[in-house]
Amino acid sequence: MERNLCLIGKGNVGTQFLKLLQKKQEILKTKFGLNFRIIAIFEYDGALINNNGLDLAKIFDIGENFRKLEDWEKNVKALNYLSKLDIETCIETTPTNPDTGEPALSHIIEALNNGFDVVSSNKGPFYLKYRELHELAEKNKCYIKYDATVASCVPALAIKNDLIANEIIGIKSILNGTSNYILSRMTSEGVEFSLALKEAQELGYAEADPTLDIEGFDAAGKLVILVNELFDLSLTIKDVKIRGISDITPQAIKLAKSDGYVIKHLAIYKNNSLLVEPRLIEKNSSLDINGTLNVIEIQTKYAGPIILMGRGAGAKEAAAAILNDLINIQKLRGYIH
Amino acid sequence: MERNLCLIGKGNVGTQFLKLLQKKQEILKTKFGLNFRIIAIFEYDGALINNNGLDLAKIFDIGENFRKLEDWEKNVKALNYLSKLDIETCIETTPTNPDTGEPALSHIIEALNNGFDVVSSNKGPFYLKYRELHELAEKNKCYIKYDATVASCVPALAIKNDLIANEIIGIKSILNGTSNYILSRMTSEGVEFSLALKEAQELGYAEADPTLDIEGFDAAGKLVILVNELFDLSLTIKDVKIRGISDITPQAIKLAKSDGYVIKHLAIYKNNSLLVEPRLIEKNSSLDINGTLNVIEIQTKYAGPIILMGRGAGAKEAAAAILNDLINIQKLRGYIH
Repeated sequence: MERNLCLIGKGNVGTQFLKLLQKKQEILKTKFGLNFRIIAIFEYDGALINNNGLDLAKIFDIGENFRKLEDWEKNVKALNYLSKLDIETCIETTPTNPDTGEPALSHIIEALNNGFDVVSSNKGPFYLKYRELHELAEKNKCYIKYDATVASCVPALAIKNDLIANEIIGIKSILNGTSNYILSRMTSEGVEFSLALKEAQELGYAEADPTLDIEGFDAAGKLVILVNELFDLSLTIKDVKIRGISDITPQAIKLAKSDGYVIKHLAIYKNNSLLVEPRLIEKNSSLDINGTLNVIEIQTKYAGPIILMGRGAGAKEAAAAILNDLINIQKLRGYIH
Repeated sequence: MERNLCLIGKGNVGTQFLKLLQKKQEILKTKFGLNFRIIAIFEYDGALINNNGLDLAKIFDIGENFRKLEDWEKNVKALNYLSKLDIETCIETTPTNPDTGEPALSHIIEALNNGFDVVSSNKGPFYLKYRELHELAEKNKCYIKYDATVASCVPALAIKNDLIANEIIGIKSILNGTSNYILSRMTSEGVEFSLALKEAQELGYAEADPTLDIEGFDAAGKLVILVNELFDLSLTIKDVKIRGISDITPQAIKLAKSDGYVIKHLAIYKNNSLLVEPRLIEKNSSLDINGTLNVIEIQTKYAGPIILMGRGAGAKEAAAAILNDLINIQKLRGYIH
């Protein structure tokens, strides 16, 4: 069965998705009888478009010069062109404005209005307009999937289906690898926040402007999506009480340590409240993870805490999460079993 | 929609399942429109049978005297009576002979041959006849689910669907809470194996005959099911190289400790080999968990290790896993969304 797709945003995640898709084409055909064809790849200044399916090998070969390919159409915009496409699914991986969720938000709305299923790795639209997007999808009988947005390839959202009977009562998590890396280094080396941040930036774990990570905004966005999904709520990032880690001192960490505690930047859902803030947790407890890992402790009524842990970031990881969403949509549509 | 069930085995797990089902009846009705009715509950010496649905409240009220209820039919055997039942699903929770998988194995085969979907918390049938049972289910167009068998309510088997695109390459796990408890105590207290075992028995973590747990047979059975499920294989418990922990000494643990290691009873799948044996792992690494917890490290190609952790045993936990399987079968059959 041929399934036509478009990709919006040919950045790191988008490119890794294309590569993974190509690598998996054979097995998707033999195992599921699925043949995914990329009809269009949109960038900010134009698009590669071929209604018979783009030649991915050619696109990889030419690398950053893809604008020289004959399928390139200059100045074409996703928002204006989506309605002309004969596709089933739109993959959205553009860079997003964290305050507005744009341009991803408009792309997703336009895709749904055209009856396309949507898979996105963009948090913004979902921590701002979770319910609205779900209602629009329902109205248009479409699926929207966004597992990559929370803890990347760790199936934090998908696990909902595996815990239906086992009532979830709360969440405690570490959802930002950058701030966790910084606190881990401050704890193990006793260094100042600024030094640990500099090290994280040098290693590529923190961005030049690290505000979103260290002030807790990134974790808050993920927490909103996770809680909306697991508890079927309609919260937005405005509902989160957020405190960053930039005022944590080595002295505070040392003091905690002497009593058997570590300071972690936790994202918590408890008693209908959403919090992102530095918290004391017991040393060597399940949330005491080091480095850039993510961890999610799901408190359940019938089986205590269930813990999920893994890499929470990375383009390859996000690409695998996107492809998984895409395959699961085919299942939901009954095309595969 | 009314869905008729039978339960075989009214032990701890079976009873907890009935209680959970009753507790969830209202929400199952309002949320999914599902009305589960228990038509029969089989014990070794008879059965409670009522084709209009048994009155669970009455059964709970009377406790161990359930044989005095008017719905009790003496000497009725599940194996002979299943074909007479008008049910959709059979829940199997009898005590099992670990060598033969009986009587669960015969119950499951009989249920499938009658066209009933099956949910079971029994490992035996699945580490002995995994492929045969799946083939029989397919032939009869039935579903079989057994998520409770591996790490209880931790969705170790169900997670397969969430990692389709993210190729799984190996497993490292701790699947037996008893042996992990014993090793944890030997490590923290420096005591002999026999003393730690006695403590575990006093606390109810180990059985009077602890052989299956401490010699690795229990973990091996779970490993077989986990690996068959995640890698679509047809292995049996005979394929596992098994070594127990009864010859581990406090000296060996101390020696490991001095080099930054702990000894854990690991269940491993690597390079097509299945192993259960004591292994050195780095102190404070993700598999270094204490107490009776279970942990499963799933090594993936695109996102490194993904770790699942939680309580691996307990009747309530198993009951929640069973009810979850039951609900998911309704989804697979298209009765709910």
